[in-house]
Amino acid sequence: MERQRLIVIGGVAAGMSAASSFKRLKPDAEAFVFEKDYFISYGACSLPYYISNDVKDFNDLISLTPKMATEERNIHVYTRHEVKAIDTQKKEVVVLDIEKNTETRYSYDKLVIATGGLPVRPNLPGIDLNNIFTIRTLMDGIEIKKYIDEWGLFEVCIGSPECLYVNRYGENRRQMKAVIVGGGYIGMEMCESFRKRGLDVTVIEKTDRVLGNMDTSITNVVEERLRSEGVKLLKNTSVEGFSGVKNSVKKVLTDRGEMEADLVLIAIGARPNTDLAKQAGIELGVNGAIKVDEFLRTNIPHVYAAGDCAEAIHIVTDKKVYIPLGTTANKQGRIAGENAAGNNNKFEGVAGTAITKIFDLEVSRTGLSPLEAEKEGIDFFVTTIKGRSRSNAYPAGKPIIVTYITEKGSGRLLGAQIVGEEGAAHRIDTLAACLSARMTIYDVARLDLGYAPPFATVWDPILIAANAAIKNVKK
Amino acid sequence: MERQRLIVIGGVAAGMSAASSFKRLKPDAEAFVFEKDYFISYGACSLPYYISNDVKDFNDLISLTPKMATEERNIHVYTRHEVKAIDTQKKEVVVLDIEKNTETRYSYDKLVIATGGLPVRPNLPGIDLNNIFTIRTLMDGIEIKKYIDEWGLFEVCIGSPECLYVNRYGENRRQMKAVIVGGGYIGMEMCESFRKRGLDVTVIEKTDRVLGNMDTSITNVVEERLRSEGVKLLKNTSVEGFSGVKNSVKKVLTDRGEMEADLVLIAIGARPNTDLAKQAGIELGVNGAIKVDEFLRTNIPHVYAAGDCAEAIHIVTDKKVYIPLGTTANKQGRIAGENAAGNNNKFEGVAGTAITKIFDLEVSRTGLSPLEAEKEGIDFFVTTIKGRSRSNAYPAGKPIIVTYITEKGSGRLLGAQIVGEEGAAHRIDTLAACLSARMTIYDVARLDLGYAPPFATVWDPILIAANAAIKNVKK
Repeated sequence: MERQRLIVIGGVAAGMSAASSFKRLKPDAEAFVFEKDYFISYGACSLPYYISNDVKDFNDLISLTPKMATEERNIHVYTRHEVKAIDTQKKEVVVLDIEKNTETRYSYDKLVIATGGLPVRPNLPGIDLNNIFTIRTLMDGIEIKKYIDEWGLFEVCIGSPECLYVNRYGENRRQMKAVIVGGGYIGMEMCESFRKRGLDVTVIEKTDRVLGNMDTSITNVVEERLRSEGVKLLKNTSVEGFSGVKNSVKKVLTDRGEMEADLVLIAIGARPNTDLAKQAGIELGVNGAIKVDEFLRTNIPHVYAAGDCAEAIHIVTDKKVYIPLGTTANKQGRIAGENAAGNNNKFEGVAGTAITKIFDLEVSRTGLSPLEAEKEGIDFFVTTIKGRSRSNAYPAGKPIIVTYITEKGSGRLLGAQIVGEEGAAHRIDTLAACLSARMTIYDVARLDLGYAPPFATVWDPILIAANAAIKNVKK
Repeated sequence: MERQRLIVIGGVAAGMSAASSFKRLKPDAEAFVFEKDYFISYGACSLPYYISNDVKDFNDLISLTPKMATEERNIHVYTRHEVKAIDTQKKEVVVLDIEKNTETRYSYDKLVIATGGLPVRPNLPGIDLNNIFTIRTLMDGIEIKKYIDEWGLFEVCIGSPECLYVNRYGENRRQMKAVIVGGGYIGMEMCESFRKRGLDVTVIEKTDRVLGNMDTSITNVVEERLRSEGVKLLKNTSVEGFSGVKNSVKKVLTDRGEMEADLVLIAIGARPNTDLAKQAGIELGVNGAIKVDEFLRTNIPHVYAAGDCAEAIHIVTDKKVYIPLGTTANKQGRIAGENAAGNNNKFEGVAGTAITKIFDLEVSRTGLSPLEAEKEGIDFFVTTIKGRSRSNAYPAGKPIIVTYITEKGSGRLLGAQIVGEEGAAHRIDTLAACLSARMTIYDVARLDLGYAPPFATVWDPILIAANAAIKNVKK
């Protein structure tokens, strides 16, 4: 009898999780992973900190090399191998060895598609100029950092009315001008990253606020912080194209005029990478992501999908959503691998919980935003309170703003958002647990949360917000 | 028609919360608060930080003065007034004006007993010597700080093989030797406090570990930290008495020998202050605390109890417990006041959630400890994992140890304990919410928690511990 074989397409978060959990349950079966890039299993969420030089070596972002995967987990990893087609009838994949330019067919018993997401890159005039980046893969991060390193920014201000900027060779250079298109999480994190490298930073955001559909009680604080950190923010502004000199971008053209740019970062979101799946007749769902059931099965037998290429159930609305995040990719990958190995584990869904650091601000959210609740047609109200991260008496406490989105009548908690310099990141997890348990704000108000003066007020901001929301449930 | 009158006995956390919530609902009724001490509404949990000089002025610990209570909330506060008797038939209390030494009877329509807790002070030889302190009230804190201030410790090490210690008057003094009896939360917090003031600190603990019945996976880390901070820890040691010179304590006598002491702090727990209630025929429950139902009603009509004098339901076991904590006192006080005003709000219970800072360690717990689960006769197992507070790549992350207590078979989470230099305090609240929702560790493993490299690993330690525990549920 031949050994059973799992094939995984894509070797980053979901893919390597799937291969690993499969091998844990079926050590005697084979697991092949095909990854078209050079790297597998890296922490893409850390790229802003690699570019900022907080993390010096990109190898530190890699949790598993192909060699480690083979030696420690007995997984066969093929990098620079791109799956060009899936034959779901014969249960085979057609794989291109990019370096050798040869194609080979591999048969599978079980297949996990973990092709991830692709950065949205708008089809605008000049989009193909050099130095217009997106940031999704480790290679993206390496290229951006290399470009900044070579610009070589050293500020020299001695005895000069205006500072000089010199590169590593002592050549006089202007301060690099970076334009970030898109004010979402990645755009915001890259503001801090670029400012740490001394760049002049402008953010262009199409809507009326940064951070997508978060409540203005939160985004106002973030926007104020951007300004105080010297970031220029242009809201309600659309990019219309780019112009360059000698193939390198020099200007960003918008509906409100043009601005100089030595580096452009397009950070307007991700879309599922599902052309391959679609060609193979695998059904797509919300936002073009691969349609999966709670066991992460696609419509084709023996084929699973996981991570940024797949959809997920939202635990608040029970509807399918596309919210690509590393945490979900890891969880889904693990479950897809377990189920490919014969288990029947459910992926229960996502709450859209996310935390981010924007300069010295912690920003977090879980569940529905007001705009999302509105889109769902839910009758809701928004409650915002300002608390403190530590007891009033204890030194160095910081303000913390908590916003709840609550259903009218029932008082069900639909979502929460928090911002502050301290304690805003981890508090959201408590509210994510409340969403999982479908708690009302009455339930939230009753939580027995911890208290000590260095960490909280005796009424934690989570409870203060719940008590404030309770007053409005029946109004 | 006469105005309705609420009388509250005790003006700290529960008492002032009760009076305030009552007045919010019934602004036209009267609220009288009798407090035998000088101060009301202070944060006793901050006393260690007042003594350490992190908080300079004791007024910063006071959230409400009698004047503010009257002017802002229209509550009549009588400090230095001790309620000597409750006549539940006539609905009156007998109040001693301590300063004037006069007694007056006041009638009530509703009564809230919020007499708090008393520090346990063992009846040992020499216990009445000077400089043997307990720490519970603001006055306790003021006295301890005054004693240390007057000792006046300034270390002078210049040109001397041994350092000299001089007081504020330049008199040569030894380094003050403090002995803390009891290794619970308060004892541990006072270690940091005393060390910050330059005291030589010894802790005497009767059992085999600090922090009561916490798991040794946690207490071992704390004990190691005590040692590295220069605190001497004597475990399995019982105090048998004290000896002194000129009425001041000089030695602590134990079953393992005697040790010098200029200051002794007795920190072996609290008991409910319920003599008054008992004399009035109010039924007592667990640990001698006032027996209350879920509406915080005692067995006597119109009489409520709240805070450190009252019992509470434990949300894990559904049994009555006595766990006196400031958070519970505030919640119970508020509900007792609301119900005295005519509402029917339930106090749902406690999980025993507590967080504390011990030097640079954050220590937290919620739910049952292994010893408590054993006492309940539950078939459980303990899981401990070591995670990190930040992504591996991100700088300055710290180890974090998570211990779960899980029921065998069902996988129900019974309790959790966490220790680490970062991220251990707030993570416990997520697990407290899980306990409220009676989650299994399968549920915990599915939580959609936030992730960003500065705040967590992509598999949060909470999830890693749940996944580790899952493996043992069916064993």
